[in-house]
Amino acid sequence: MIELDFAKSDGLIPAIAQDWKTGEVLMLAYINKLSWEETLKSGNATYWSRSRNKLWKKGEESGNVQKIKEILVDCDDDTVIFKVDQIGGAACHTGYRTCFYRKIEGEELKTVGSKVFNPEEKYKK
Amino acid sequence: MIELDFAKSDGLIPAIAQDWKTGEVLMLAYINKLSWEETLKSGNATYWSRSRNKLWKKGEESGNVQKIKEILVDCDDDTVIFKVDQIGGAACHTGYRTCFYRKIEGEELKTVGSKVFNPEEKYKK
Repeated sequence: MIELDFAKSDGLIPAIAQDWKTGEVLMLAYINKLSWEETLKSGNATYWSRSRNKLWKKGEESGNVQKIKEILVDCDDDTVIFKVDQIGGAACHTGYRTCFYRKIEGEELKTVGSKVFNPEEKYKK
Repeated sequence: MIELDFAKSDGLIPAIAQDWKTGEVLMLAYINKLSWEETLKSGNATYWSRSRNKLWKKGEESGNVQKIKEILVDCDDDTVIFKVDQIGGAACHTGYRTCFYRKIEGEELKTVGSKVFNPEEKYKK
């Protein structure tokens, strides 16, 4: 098991999910030791939800899991990149392909992405 | 001025520096409100050093500044991507082009990048 430096930030370090083919950054979330182990074991990106304070198996509800293709570790062992195959084509709960679907133009935020799914349909019970 | 959600994590949110041409992720560092304002004003990526607890004008010492080409904001307003032109060709203080120069292979970390500069030469007084 590759050891990361979880001590720095209350046991949580950032994980960047990047499309393994296009290099597009899809999202950033946090991992703790448990989600790191679960990611390595399962081969699916698994985060720690800070809002719900629990293990977050990405895509468990929506089906949009992230298959791990490669993992990069930074020079300080306190940030990782998950290069993933994003099942369903969208990482963001809003339905956009990437969480980074807005860019700064002057004093405004302009939407530059387009929706892959309708979140009201996707998450309905 | 675009408002970000600095309240969540003690006033600091992650900023991902990505090569504006290749999409390669170069590094991740943190910004607070002051470094965000400085980044927008100066056009150079400016972070907050957690270890030194001060404003970190990236490249101030090494000359390897990051010219901002585009800024993306995520769905929660608590992570940004700086798409940058990395002057000097390397973002990492170790001399590698990117801080993510190691990938996981089995149970090992394998170096996949090559050094752009020698840090002992670059940072000598």
